[in-house]
Amino acid sequence: MTYEEGRRQFPVLEHAAYLNAGTNGPLAQATVDAIVAEVQRNLHEGRSGRAFVERMLELRDVARRSFAEVLAVEPEHVALVDSTTRGCATVLAGLGLSGDDEVITTDQEHFGLSGPLFATGARVVIVEADEDAILAAITSRTRLIATSHILWTTGRRLDIHRLKRASGLPVLIDGAQSAGAVAVDVGEIDWYTVSAQKWLCGPDPSGALYVRDPERVRVTTPTFFAQESHEPTGEFVPKATAARLDGGWVGLPALAGLVAALGNRPPWRYERSAEMAARCAELLAPHVEVVTPPASSTLVSFRPPGEPSELVASLHARGVVVRELPGRNLVRASCGWWTNEDDLERLVAGVVGA
Amino acid sequence: MTYEEGRRQFPVLEHAAYLNAGTNGPLAQATVDAIVAEVQRNLHEGRSGRAFVERMLELRDVARRSFAEVLAVEPEHVALVDSTTRGCATVLAGLGLSGDDEVITTDQEHFGLSGPLFATGARVVIVEADEDAILAAITSRTRLIATSHILWTTGRRLDIHRLKRASGLPVLIDGAQSAGAVAVDVGEIDWYTVSAQKWLCGPDPSGALYVRDPERVRVTTPTFFAQESHEPTGEFVPKATAARLDGGWVGLPALAGLVAALGNRPPWRYERSAEMAARCAELLAPHVEVVTPPASSTLVSFRPPGEPSELVASLHARGVVVRELPGRNLVRASCGWWTNEDDLERLVAGVVGA
Repeated sequence: MTYEEGRRQFPVLEHAAYLNAGTNGPLAQATVDAIVAEVQRNLHEGRSGRAFVERMLELRDVARRSFAEVLAVEPEHVALVDSTTRGCATVLAGLGLSGDDEVITTDQEHFGLSGPLFATGARVVIVEADEDAILAAITSRTRLIATSHILWTTGRRLDIHRLKRASGLPVLIDGAQSAGAVAVDVGEIDWYTVSAQKWLCGPDPSGALYVRDPERVRVTTPTFFAQESHEPTGEFVPKATAARLDGGWVGLPALAGLVAALGNRPPWRYERSAEMAARCAELLAPHVEVVTPPASSTLVSFRPPGEPSELVASLHARGVVVRELPGRNLVRASCGWWTNEDDLERLVAGVVGA
Repeated sequence: MTYEEGRRQFPVLEHAAYLNAGTNGPLAQATVDAIVAEVQRNLHEGRSGRAFVERMLELRDVARRSFAEVLAVEPEHVALVDSTTRGCATVLAGLGLSGDDEVITTDQEHFGLSGPLFATGARVVIVEADEDAILAAITSRTRLIATSHILWTTGRRLDIHRLKRASGLPVLIDGAQSAGAVAVDVGEIDWYTVSAQKWLCGPDPSGALYVRDPERVRVTTPTFFAQESHEPTGEFVPKATAARLDGGWVGLPALAGLVAALGNRPPWRYERSAEMAARCAELLAPHVEVVTPPASSTLVSFRPPGEPSELVASLHARGVVVRELPGRNLVRASCGWWTNEDDLERLVAGVVGA
């Protein structure tokens, strides 16, 4: 598959310079075809019976194996959860933290991580989004380091393996802006969340949670898929694998779309999207302050001369889709493997002409 | 709309005696049309920008108001959660129960309630599914009564208002088999969960949680929709309404399908489905032991002479869709307002001929 063939799978790119996979990726025709075929099947065949259940379990299995391929891990370590928010909350609730415990995080996290962190009741220690700052904040009470692999604001990539190696602490990583965007090596990381509706172009919401040791956290919100067996008392034997942390029922249409999307990963995807992000930064640099460090991610965040929300609106009117980062005076462009030079030129023309 | 016009909205009923709304209801053509139109719009227009977000918020609002109509309550008391499992888990996690506390439940609950109950760590007191038995189990340590309005196994309906009045305790009700099936009056009940993919014929999964007093439980797994405002530390001000317990992102296709399904409630629905359930029991009674008490619900559970799983399979081969209840030696038929005499006759012919 060539770049242009890959790109033609996404109808939205025919008219828009769609540069917002950091929120939701473009949908491929085949993904939507799979969703529509499945919902039509549900309409005509109903939604129960052995074949229905077997198809659902089979698609869950395929989705789990596909996520495992994205992260280069074994499927037994993958829980199906519908978002990074859920993935973070599942881990944090299961750790049983209390007010005596400290967790270290950064000032650049999404509410999907920071909200559940705050809700644990542990003391949340906030530092600059920098490896040295995180490691310097460790005390004898630190129970967890929780941060992003790629910051959704500045697009900076943290050296998560250094954090793990140097601390020896449990590490929870929000991978919303990395999985599917850059090659991920989870290595010794304990928990790594994946969003599928962003860089993997899956249905929204969809995602997964990598779990190094399934027995490390308690199953606090068991779903039917979590249990191997259960008693009328609710007492249950959790599955041996990460599936014990599965987030619950996913409809067949969404599952079919997810499987189609996860299967669409051209071998040149990471190289191409990195190239496009570098090119985007290069084209913008003469006109605005680009804050994303070079070669960090597929996000390009920049500080426009004027009001970010006005720039985003004026770009949108020109068919250029980016987003602002509220309260940070930044605009963010997301470059995928489907992005081309024309998209970037339209962005720059819009920035210059605004 | 006449019965037969109402019925013609559901293509699966053209060929099947689909009697399993207790698992997933039939889908109406208009519901699927709404889902397909929305996913096509996502495909061609992308999934971001102000119009996209505004449409999503508007559909959430309409869905919330529609659930409020189903329960005859104000929308401020309705949280959007994707299942009764999530609804139960949200309440139970937020109550902060510990091993010193007792919760009373019955031996006829679905794992969606019993699993999260067990996971609280509280002492789970299991009694027969009967109002007297529940009330007799109350001690000074009882913190909660948690049970179903209509039992998913036997189809018996409990007098939940008697439980509340006589106990004065917080009461959590699993309404999976009642909301949309029978007229529900939540009265003084504290929390009442709703599944929309069953009797309300919505996309799977979908649902809601009625919350009498939003401040009564802690927000333990905050989603972006839960907060009115938040700090980089994750500290947040929860919304004043039940929306603080919202379960997270719902994709526009599912939201549009949900709104279409919730809007499809013919005024004669409860009368008709009660009639059909009574007729179903009447037709089955000469052949099998019907265990559902009369006029209790829209479920008809019965004990077949042979192996339930074999009967379910042989009925399925005849286009009659019912389910077995594992471990209870029961088969369950679900009668909706779309059910007709022919469906019931096919069921009985299949039971007699098996």
